[in-house]
Amino acid sequence: MFEKIVEVGLLFDFYGKLLNDKQYSVIEFYYIHDLSLSEIAEHLGISRQGVYDLLKRAETKLFTYEKKLGLAEKFIQSMSKIKQILDNTDEAIKSLEERDYIQVRKHIEEINSVAMNILETGQEVK
Amino acid sequence: MFEKIVEVGLLFDFYGKLLNDKQYSVIEFYYIHDLSLSEIAEHLGISRQGVYDLLKRAETKLFTYEKKLGLAEKFIQSMSKIKQILDNTDEAIKSLEERDYIQVRKHIEEINSVAMNILETGQEVK
Repeated sequence: MFEKIVEVGLLFDFYGKLLNDKQYSVIEFYYIHDLSLSEIAEHLGISRQGVYDLLKRAETKLFTYEKKLGLAEKFIQSMSKIKQILDNTDEAIKSLEERDYIQVRKHIEEINSVAMNILETGQEVK
Repeated sequence: MFEKIVEVGLLFDFYGKLLNDKQYSVIEFYYIHDLSLSEIAEHLGISRQGVYDLLKRAETKLFTYEKKLGLAEKFIQSMSKIKQILDNTDEAIKSLEERDYIQVRKHIEEINSVAMNILETGQEVK
């Protein structure tokens, strides 16, 4: 369940603005503000079943956008590469302080390679 | 005009899969394969005016997606930051070869700062 909350939350960040107002609200209430179906039903003045249906339709829409565009997946991959770059800057500074200049060079080259990879992946597929 | 080709091309890379088949085809023929309206009309078996209308609708759809989601703009900004990182790796290697370790550290710290910025911008807005 936790994973689903994170996943829908991420897709909502990317594609939320493509939902209609009601779909946007139910996702926001349920996944971001953590309200129950009954609470949302009361808030929107519709039945609990109505909220459930809206929620399922909105989720499906978000998953469909991701299936077509895959932007959240690419975002996750890019962020993981940025973290690799950050790890290498830490290691490079450490090696610099230890005057291990071969290691410094290795880490800088690794950063260069990861950054090039991000650039190339970006140019290819966006 | 050149700028528009690049811009529509970029938006097409991001949101093209959200267009319907005909809209997708006219954008592809016109902006990617550089066919004229008359050539596309002949190819699709519709009037030149029909192609023009399809093209305008497809362009509007792409610009609307970008206005709502802004992913192409964010992509351009990220790529520019990645280029900053690459410039700094080049400079860091050069400084390392010149044994100017203060400059090496400066460039590594600059890389760290740009990468942190990408990560934070990503967490905020995607």
